[in-house]
Amino acid sequence: MQDLSWRQEVRADDIIAIRNLTANTRFFSTEEISVAVELVEEKLQKGDACSYQFLFLQDNQNVIAYSCYGLIPFTDQRFDLYWIAVDPKRQGLGIGQKVLAYSEELIKKQGGEQIYIETSSRPLYEPTRRFYIRNDYQQLTLLQDFYRTGDSKIIYGKKI
Amino acid sequence: MQDLSWRQEVRADDIIAIRNLTANTRFFSTEEISVAVELVEEKLQKGDACSYQFLFLQDNQNVIAYSCYGLIPFTDQRFDLYWIAVDPKRQGLGIGQKVLAYSEELIKKQGGEQIYIETSSRPLYEPTRRFYIRNDYQQLTLLQDFYRTGDSKIIYGKKI
Repeated sequence: MQDLSWRQEVRADDIIAIRNLTANTRFFSTEEISVAVELVEEKLQKGDACSYQFLFLQDNQNVIAYSCYGLIPFTDQRFDLYWIAVDPKRQGLGIGQKVLAYSEELIKKQGGEQIYIETSSRPLYEPTRRFYIRNDYQQLTLLQDFYRTGDSKIIYGKKI
Repeated sequence: MQDLSWRQEVRADDIIAIRNLTANTRFFSTEEISVAVELVEEKLQKGDACSYQFLFLQDNQNVIAYSCYGLIPFTDQRFDLYWIAVDPKRQGLGIGQKVLAYSEELIKKQGGEQIYIETSSRPLYEPTRRFYIRNDYQQLTLLQDFYRTGDSKIIYGKKI
């Protein structure tokens, strides 16, 4: 990790960085990649008026992992972790865990009490689901066929 | 119903109409009213590029009920009913049921297969929950303390 640094401010070149990073993981659909990029754009435009928050981990040149999280509207200190992604060339080194742990720390610092994460039941996301469980997220519910027939939504939660 | 008419296009004066309507019901918090109004504003600005859709029921002068719904991102023909409200002076006449039924028809016409509705477990919303159950929505799950301690989120679903 010695060549890596954290950053929370969003920069204009994150638009292309997040497009590439999310595409490279092969875990996100075209629509999901578009939305991930739109959130970066919205943050750039609106600043603090935008409830999405970002955490980037980068080496000297590139963003190698990031998360996007935010206070859930109408809730008292409940946060959603919307996106987390690690460059596939850097996976298997515990970087996802570090990004998740630091995201949790940043959420807790601003008063967050509970984090929710949603993911799909499809086999593709089995490593994702194992990752959340390994990091003390509990499956709270499963919404059958939520995304489409045969593709349910699983909601995880963790008190922090 | 003979003096009433349906409308789906959003107009500039819906901003104030929806602010008043949602406030008058006393079912929505200040934050919820703000968001309901923001969705109207976003629709006015972005048109079809905005995924929120609206249904208004009005008499000669005023909007007396409305719904706001939309395709849930990343899903195949799953829709969320985000808002439904009836002017308290017109409640108890079956108007909410008519707005819900016509919203469902409009969703089905564009290919919608499933509708989700979320609401709070608080006693204030007992009439709301009875309303959904009476209209064939099934409780799919409850997320304990989702909004805050003692205020859970209930998710209803209906296949259409």
